[in-house]
Amino acid sequence: LPELVTLITDFGLKDSYVGAMKGVLKTLAPDLEVIDISHEIPSQDVAAAAWVLNGAYPYFPDHTVHVVVVDPGVGTDRKGVAVDTNQGSFIGPDNGVFSGILSTHKGAKIVALENPKLMREKVSSTFHGRDIFAPAAAHLCLGTPLGDFGEGVADPVILEMWEVEEGQNELVGHVVHVDRFGNSLTNLSRDMLVKEGKELSQIRTGDHRFSSIRKTYGDTPSGEAAVLLGSNDMLEIAVTGGDASSRLGIKRGDKVLVRWE
Amino acid sequence: LPELVTLITDFGLKDSYVGAMKGVLKTLAPDLEVIDISHEIPSQDVAAAAWVLNGAYPYFPDHTVHVVVVDPGVGTDRKGVAVDTNQGSFIGPDNGVFSGILSTHKGAKIVALENPKLMREKVSSTFHGRDIFAPAAAHLCLGTPLGDFGEGVADPVILEMWEVEEGQNELVGHVVHVDRFGNSLTNLSRDMLVKEGKELSQIRTGDHRFSSIRKTYGDTPSGEAAVLLGSNDMLEIAVTGGDASSRLGIKRGDKVLVRWE
Amino acid sequence: LPELVTLITDFGLKDSYVGAMKGVLKTLAPDLEVIDISHEIPSQDVAAAAWVLNGAYPYFPDHTVHVVVVDPGVGTDRKGVAVDTNQGSFIGPDNGVFSGILSTHKGAKIVALENPKLMREKVSSTFHGRDIFAPAAAHLCLGTPLGDFGEGVADPVILEMWEVEEGQNELVGHVVHVDRFGNSLTNLSRDMLVKEGKELSQIRTGDHRFSSIRKTYGDTPSGEAAVLLGSNDMLEIAVTGGDASSRLGIKRGDKVLVRWE
Repeated sequence: LPELVTLITDFGLKDSYVGAMKGVLKTLAPDLEVIDISHEIPSQDVAAAAWVLNGAYPYFPDHTVHVVVVDPGVGTDRKGVAVDTNQGSFIGPDNGVFSGILSTHKGAKIVALENPKLMREKVSSTFHGRDIFAPAAAHLCLGTPLGDFGEGVADPVILEMWEVEEGQNELVGHVVHVDRFGNSLTNLSRDMLVKEGKELSQIRTGDHRFSSIRKTYGDTPSGEAAVLLGSNDMLEIAVTGGDASSRLGIKRGDKVLVRWE
Repeated sequence: LPELVTLITDFGLKDSYVGAMKGVLKTLAPDLEVIDISHEIPSQDVAAAAWVLNGAYPYFPDHTVHVVVVDPGVGTDRKGVAVDTNQGSFIGPDNGVFSGILSTHKGAKIVALENPKLMREKVSSTFHGRDIFAPAAAHLCLGTPLGDFGEGVADPVILEMWEVEEGQNELVGHVVHVDRFGNSLTNLSRDMLVKEGKELSQIRTGDHRFSSIRKTYGDTPSGEAAVLLGSNDMLEIAVTGGDASSRLGIKRGDKVLVRWE
Repeated sequence: LPELVTLITDFGLKDSYVGAMKGVLKTLAPDLEVIDISHEIPSQDVAAAAWVLNGAYPYFPDHTVHVVVVDPGVGTDRKGVAVDTNQGSFIGPDNGVFSGILSTHKGAKIVALENPKLMREKVSSTFHGRDIFAPAAAHLCLGTPLGDFGEGVADPVILEMWEVEEGQNELVGHVVHVDRFGNSLTNLSRDMLVKEGKELSQIRTGDHRFSSIRKTYGDTPSGEAAVLLGSNDMLEIAVTGGDASSRLGIKRGDKVLVRWE
């Protein structure tokens, strides 16, 4: 049974919202352990939440439940979902926060959170973190099967920037995050960049072209732009000792093209 | 026995203060679990601490110990107190941080923290969070009865803004919090707003008058002011898609009058 | 066996870095408990990390493992180290973050983190917190003896500002931290300030001279500078109700001289 529940929200830590969620979790399932990942996601920034989740979940035990509450559509008819993969379970709104997980785990089981018995008795229209998502995580920890929460969801929301188009000699991904140093991180992983029997010939974003992937930052003269594999094994565009995003005019959502020959 | 200890402070997270308190807690009572609610209460803002505590404690298990350290009077003769209710125990300075708890739980047992055996051996004049409050919380978790801490406290400090005056056809509460969206939240709960056999006729704050309580934000045209019940079931004054506090000139501490006929 | 792991980093809480470290810890050693001390150390400020660690570790159980990741030299040939004392174990880069611990615990055992079997399989050049330090802390919790990590380290890095020169009638320490109120805190502890059979005659920093140590802030007229023992029992220079650092022109690293006669 899962016993670890992580939290990613945009609630900040000045208010009682995070505390209320932790209280609900510990009341329903006293043995679970709550772990804060981040409560400083920029307000309503679904793509930022997807990025942070993606950088953290692979390092947790497979039985962890990750709860993500960045939820600009709370109170509308957007669904709440539970996602089950072999690298953890995920609870949150169906608005793209799970884009990374769903592109990696194509066969994940996804259900809508529809069963009122697995929610707080009174559900507010503004705080599903406390009333629906925290209870769902607690019930997963208590052993409630996924099917009890609701119907399967066939077409969950995936942000366009998390899509990867694969051609025969080509791959198109996107910049999914610009970090505080201005490094532009993509959704293209090390594995995707190896094509047996073929040689990488070009990486391009906007007007910027690169002919190879550098091994480390140390290989690059200061001030020069380069592509390399970051600490997550994802392709990134960086300027040694500088700000690649502003220097090269790269922003989140930009396409990144990889070509082989 | 309690096993959960939550923390609300204005210490921020740049310093060692929160760490020192956690260390004292885990040294005295290794089995307790520490849960952060907030360390970002604005410096010395007792009313903000009272508000955050009020939004979090009802969701925790009844055996939780909540420690609140927002303590501008540390080192003066203000008392430290332990409060026992059927919805948790509370440890902190007697300066109004427990206003919400004490208005809700009229019969709560309150004692002063006076017993030096239940403090750190050397008590500083500037850091009672570490030297008095964290040890008191740990000792509660270890089973020390409330009476061992000190004498009963008959008239604990309650902030004026947390008082509710009840007349026969009238109720006067206050705005106790303005959130980051400018919504003005009061200390008037859903229960207080129902008077059997009578009909609500007016809600008034300053020059602003409302004749009914809206069901949801969705019922209100954008830009219009309304009163409704927030996610905590407390009356709030909001402007759909706007900032009620600055638009209507409402601030923390303002009176809110409810009238029936 | 240790079961508590504390974290001090400069990662902030907007990114996935802290989450990734927690995931690695809980994957390797599911029974350990992670406690956040601070993730808001100013970026790459080794001296600030040393100060925060020093204010927190003495209050934790002796079997705690403290992990500090403020690591401007990551990817260079600076060592990673594990330090063992009778007041806890410490894991982090050998760059001065352990200055306070090492000046207090002269006989501490220190080893380099060199054993690849006790790291993540693939070690990035930019994120040793996740790939080396978190695994090392987990392995300490699992009972791995210190000697298994690597060779002894004879001359660990100690920041100059943490050194104390002792003469026969003289002592020279430094300001190691300026807090948010402008109080200037030194590395001179209460014990160092007592010399049997001698009387303290002067404390000096820059041009400022003090002839005695005040008991409390309350003893000092408002606006006047004074030296006193702070809540950590360390000598500090303060201006009652004012900012000693800017008023007296004191900054981190400044020498503080104590003289007896």
